[in-house]
Amino acid sequence: MVGKRKRKISDIGERELIQRFQQLITPNKEALLMGSEDAVAISLNGEALVINTDMLVASTDILPSMTAEEVAWKTGVMGLSDLAAKGAAPLGVLFSFGLPEDMEESYVLELVRGLNQVCREHDTYYLGGDTNKCTELTITCTAIGKVPKTELIKRRGSKPGDIVAITGEFGYTGALFEILIKGYQIPKRILEKIRSKALRPRARIQEGRALSSAHAVTAAIDSSDGLAWSLQELVNMNQVGFYIDQLPVPKVCADFSKMHELDVYDLILYGGEEFELVVTIPSDLWNTAIRSVQRVGGQLFPIGKVTSEKKNILVRDGEEHAIEPRGYEHFY
Amino acid sequence: MVGKRKRKISDIGERELIQRFQQLITPNKEALLMGSEDAVAISLNGEALVINTDMLVASTDILPSMTAEEVAWKTGVMGLSDLAAKGAAPLGVLFSFGLPEDMEESYVLELVRGLNQVCREHDTYYLGGDTNKCTELTITCTAIGKVPKTELIKRRGSKPGDIVAITGEFGYTGALFEILIKGYQIPKRILEKIRSKALRPRARIQEGRALSSAHAVTAAIDSSDGLAWSLQELVNMNQVGFYIDQLPVPKVCADFSKMHELDVYDLILYGGEEFELVVTIPSDLWNTAIRSVQRVGGQLFPIGKVTSEKKNILVRDGEEHAIEPRGYEHFY
Repeated sequence: MVGKRKRKISDIGERELIQRFQQLITPNKEALLMGSEDAVAISLNGEALVINTDMLVASTDILPSMTAEEVAWKTGVMGLSDLAAKGAAPLGVLFSFGLPEDMEESYVLELVRGLNQVCREHDTYYLGGDTNKCTELTITCTAIGKVPKTELIKRRGSKPGDIVAITGEFGYTGALFEILIKGYQIPKRILEKIRSKALRPRARIQEGRALSSAHAVTAAIDSSDGLAWSLQELVNMNQVGFYIDQLPVPKVCADFSKMHELDVYDLILYGGEEFELVVTIPSDLWNTAIRSVQRVGGQLFPIGKVTSEKKNILVRDGEEHAIEPRGYEHFY
Repeated sequence: MVGKRKRKISDIGERELIQRFQQLITPNKEALLMGSEDAVAISLNGEALVINTDMLVASTDILPSMTAEEVAWKTGVMGLSDLAAKGAAPLGVLFSFGLPEDMEESYVLELVRGLNQVCREHDTYYLGGDTNKCTELTITCTAIGKVPKTELIKRRGSKPGDIVAITGEFGYTGALFEILIKGYQIPKRILEKIRSKALRPRARIQEGRALSSAHAVTAAIDSSDGLAWSLQELVNMNQVGFYIDQLPVPKVCADFSKMHELDVYDLILYGGEEFELVVTIPSDLWNTAIRSVQRVGGQLFPIGKVTSEKKNILVRDGEEHAIEPRGYEHFY
C-alpha cells in the first residue's frame, strides 16, 4: 500500500499556515497586540513596547538590478513600517544575517552601510544583531519601538462613515515589478522616477506618531502586501467594507500603463511592497488628522469611506468595480 | 588583464566580518550595550531593555537525528540564554521563519509547538513573528527582556582575584557532536544521557537574575561558542587571564572519552552550543553568589581564578596547559 503523501506547506499557503501557528501558541493575556497584527506589543511601565520582526529573503524579495543599498533600504523600511502603523517611535533595530559563504565581502559591507543609513534617516539606530552561514542571503530585521499605551493604534476599530486615507500614492512598485520582471521597455526618465519612488520608500513613522498622538485614527495597517490586501485585512478585522472613489493615480504610472496597455489600477491595488499607511479616520476628526500629518511634513490622501457592507468597491470612470481580495503571499 | 578576485566572506571569517560591521555602524551613545556583546541594551524608563537576535540555520545548526522539538528547544534557548547572561528576565520572544516550500506541514507545526513549549518552560511567551519562503530552514529568535539598570551584567568587569564559575557542567554537546557527526558507537544508556543533557539545555535565566539582583558578579557571558571561547572573550574584554584548576568532568563524558581514546577536556573546552553562564565573582561575594543561585534551584561550580596575566591556563593532573583560543565560528 502506498502511504498517503504528507501535506507540504506549499499546499496550504502562508495565511492558513499562520492560522495554524496561532492555534499552537499560548496567548499572553497581558499582551497588547499578538498574532493577527504585524507587530506585537506588550505593556512596559505604562507604555506599549512594540516589536516587529520581518525577514528579507534574496530569492523572493530582491528584484533584478537592485543594488545592495536598495536591498538594505527595503529591509529597514519593512521593519520600521510596522512600527509606524502602530503609532510607535523606534527605539532601535537589530539585523540578523544569513550569508552564503561565497558572498563578496564588499557586497555585505554595502548592505551594512545601507542598513545603518536607513536607520539614521528614520531617526533611530542599528543596534546590533548576528551573522550566520546560510545557502541564500536572508536578513531578519527586528524593530523595537514605543508608544504611550493610550496612543497604540490597532487594526481593529474602523467604523462605517470613517474616512479612509493613505499617506502616499500607490502604483510605483507595481509598475517597477512589471518593468524589472517582465521586461517592459520605458524611457529612462520615467524608469528613474518609478525606480526611486519604489526602491527608496520611507517608513511613515512621523505620520504614524502624528496620527496616534492626535488620537485621530480608528485603525491603521501598513501596506506591504499591497493596497487591496491591506483593505481586505481591515475588512476581515472590522466587519466593514470600503467604498474607494478618490484613489490618486500617479502620472508616471498612468503614462507607463498607457504605453503598454496595462490597467493602472492593477498596479495601484495589487503591487505590494509599498509602505504607505492605510488609515481610517472619523469624519469629525479629519481636520485634526490632516493638520497633524502636515505639521510633520507628511501627506494624507482621502480615498473613500468605510461602509457597513462587507465588500470593497473601487469607483473608476463613474463605475463601481469589486476590489479583489488578493495580495502578495509566500508559498504559492 | 585578469581582474583581482574579490574577497569572499569565507576568506575573512565571522569574527573579522563582525568587526568590519561595527566600523560602519553609527554608535548610539545612549545605548547601554552595543556591538561587542551578544545582546544589545537600551535605557527605557529607568530599566534596561535587553534584546537579542540569533538565527538557527538548518545546514549548520541541526545535527543528524535531531527531532523538530529538539530543534525548537535549541532555537529558543539560544535566544533566551543571552538574556540570562545580562541578568535580564524575558518579556517575550518572536520567531521569524525561513521555510523551504516543500517542507512538511507537520514538521513546521512541531517546530511551532516546541517553540511555544520552550518559551513557556522559561516562564515567558511566544509573542509572534513571521514566515517566509527560503531555500533552507532558518529560524531567527528575537528575545526581549528587562533588568533594572543597576543590575545589568556586562562582559566587562572581571578583576584579578575573582572566582570563575559556571552554572553547569560542560562536555555533553562536545560528546554528542562526536557521536552524531563522526559516528562513534556507544551504549544506548550513555547516549541517552548525553543526548538529553545536550539537546535539552536550559537558558539560565533564573541563575542570571539571581546573580544580577544580588550584585554578585563582575562579568558574565553565555557559552554558545564553547567554554574556551567564552573565556577568551572575557580575556579580550577585560585584559585578564584565567587559571582553571577545578573544571568538573561529567562521568558519562569521561566514560565516553575513555572508550574511544578521546581527550575529555577537548569535549569540555571546545564543544560549543552549551548554554551555561560563565561568570566572575569577587571572592568576598562568593557566599552571596552561591546562596542566591541555590535559592532559585540552580548550581554554581567554581572552576578557577581570574589572573592578571593575559592567558588561559588549564590545570589537569597537576600540570598546567594552555587553553587554545578557539571555538565555533561560521564561514570557516
